[in-house]
Amino acid sequence: MNRVFITNYSSTNFSLENIDIKSIMLSAVQKLICNSQIDKKLIDGILVSSTSNSKYLAAQIAESTGITPKIFSTIENLCSSGTHAIVTAFAYVSSGLANAVIVVGADLYNTPGKIFDSDESRGDYTHPIFWASLFTKAHKRKYNTTELDLAIISKKNYDHSINNPYAYNNKHYTITEIINSKKITDDLNILHCSKLCTGCSAIMMMSESYAKKFTENSTAIIGIGQSTTSSVFTKNDLTSMESTKRASIDAFSMCKLTPSEIDVAEVHDAFSICEIMAIEDLGFVNKGQGTTFSNELYQTNNNKINPRGGLIGSGHPLGATGISQTIEIVQQLQNQAGKRQVHNAKYGLVHNMSAAATSSTVLILT
Amino acid sequence: MNRVFITNYSSTNFSLENIDIKSIMLSAVQKLICNSQIDKKLIDGILVSSTSNSKYLAAQIAESTGITPKIFSTIENLCSSGTHAIVTAFAYVSSGLANAVIVVGADLYNTPGKIFDSDESRGDYTHPIFWASLFTKAHKRKYNTTELDLAIISKKNYDHSINNPYAYNNKHYTITEIINSKKITDDLNILHCSKLCTGCSAIMMMSESYAKKFTENSTAIIGIGQSTTSSVFTKNDLTSMESTKRASIDAFSMCKLTPSEIDVAEVHDAFSICEIMAIEDLGFVNKGQGTTFSNELYQTNNNKINPRGGLIGSGHPLGATGISQTIEIVQQLQNQAGKRQVHNAKYGLVHNMSAAATSSTVLILT
Repeated sequence: MNRVFITNYSSTNFSLENIDIKSIMLSAVQKLICNSQIDKKLIDGILVSSTSNSKYLAAQIAESTGITPKIFSTIENLCSSGTHAIVTAFAYVSSGLANAVIVVGADLYNTPGKIFDSDESRGDYTHPIFWASLFTKAHKRKYNTTELDLAIISKKNYDHSINNPYAYNNKHYTITEIINSKKITDDLNILHCSKLCTGCSAIMMMSESYAKKFTENSTAIIGIGQSTTSSVFTKNDLTSMESTKRASIDAFSMCKLTPSEIDVAEVHDAFSICEIMAIEDLGFVNKGQGTTFSNELYQTNNNKINPRGGLIGSGHPLGATGISQTIEIVQQLQNQAGKRQVHNAKYGLVHNMSAAATSSTVLILT
Repeated sequence: MNRVFITNYSSTNFSLENIDIKSIMLSAVQKLICNSQIDKKLIDGILVSSTSNSKYLAAQIAESTGITPKIFSTIENLCSSGTHAIVTAFAYVSSGLANAVIVVGADLYNTPGKIFDSDESRGDYTHPIFWASLFTKAHKRKYNTTELDLAIISKKNYDHSINNPYAYNNKHYTITEIINSKKITDDLNILHCSKLCTGCSAIMMMSESYAKKFTENSTAIIGIGQSTTSSVFTKNDLTSMESTKRASIDAFSMCKLTPSEIDVAEVHDAFSICEIMAIEDLGFVNKGQGTTFSNELYQTNNNKINPRGGLIGSGHPLGATGISQTIEIVQQLQNQAGKRQVHNAKYGLVHNMSAAATSSTVLILT
């Protein structure tokens, strides 16, 4: 298996703009091609990640940016479309079928991917907050997780996002404001939720020879784990995310590292409870210790988890999310994260998931 | 690059049934798993090819069939989604990330992929027949292609489809019936058009070691070419399909074969004119010789082009088409095509394209 590198990246602002999906992709891809010191003719592929209903997007973006790829299609797997597209590009480069592949992810705030109505176990409660609410209730009951524990996750991520120039959020919140924010369900307030938004993120992935030739800094993907346990979330234990556990084991096994060696991680905090559960299920701590761990990070101003503000602080443009998480880790590992920089980060992790954690992707980068 | 094999296949009937996209996929995948002598636990991936707006299909099919893949997503590239999914699976297996991947393609007769409304050069003439009509007019003008030449393509493909148990068509037509069938544009009648329909086709792709272990017969993919020239068809010469030419050159170059060595081919006859152009652009004959070639095949009852009836005879369920073309070539190469069998077929070719031939895929199998 040939090694695969992320060499360049670009992003648009995350906002509530009502823009054409093609236009927003175009602006990120044009910037990416411009950032990359590579002749357009050498770009072998463009993979689009989106939950939009627009068709044939890869060919359209190729035409508009003047590239002539041999690999081009749209990849969809709901909220983890982005990392699935990255793993697909990895396969293309690793197999030798391609040397340079663009992965571009985008969605609009009102994407049809926002509701997953095929999960009939949800009844009329199709909005994602209902599964997150069940997760929260179950975790509170089993591990005595408190309102304060949850609010600390949200506060930390809103705070982090202030230093992320592309983030949807631009406000600090106090713990009290979070706890007193509008109640949506018994267990979750509005400030515990990531915000669906409009945004696009793109990366260039290259083979080792191309990465050496065309860049000074590049980041290798060394661990990949993906798992789907079901598409019906009520089939799972509600206090842990089985697909995340399995993906994590596979990713660490591929690169022969352990969770304690990870210096920085972007985890899929669609809701505050998800960050606590992810910390546990990725193996950073034992089950039930997620709140202790995250409270300690917060008390010590340690931003190793979700330094860009996670989904709660940055916003959640579905098809872009996994790619923007990956860009954050690349910036961290290349010591280019500015005020968000985690000191001396050598190994980073991306955790991206779909549909009530019924599937998960874990990537490990260095 | 590790070698990759197609080991098993399954298909539903092609019809005008109004069925749930998930149900039709499920029936083909269940049959495929049953045909494959492999433990479900060893199936690493499921890639869905579809232009449907339904989300998260791969995870849903995985759950319903009891497999736990590490690779799962939907791949869309309009009418060539099927071969793009096959090439993606090829990359996964070839890279060593997977040993066994299911590729399943399906669409319904009324799929939203049937109209490509982002090509603004089409004005109000969004239906595919309008580009096919321009292609026909241009080819007639430049190469003196006649009504009879076109009718021969249609007649041959309707005739071939009678021996395809899954085909939508079940009727022979006379040349006169085709020429006198309902006129849709100045240049094309209804019997020159492939019929959008409901259908699903699925294949199992394996690494060499798995193919040896789990099957007696398997077919290798030895040549791959893909190209997109634009998404706006009027940017191309209307008498030839540039993306097909490029894809063909790349596919033959990968396996070091020439068009004259191909024994059997499924070409993308979305309309009768496309088969004539494909024969030329794939390099079977020089430009302008497509009609002479196909008339000769017809006169001599030679069924090497579109033995299953092509899209005109079999029907065109967009996401399934490239996969069902591939299944036909696999059956031919394994001497399992029954009444459709081409004698002593050693090398076969699949030609699948999208959106007025603005992109094409060519696969070569043995």
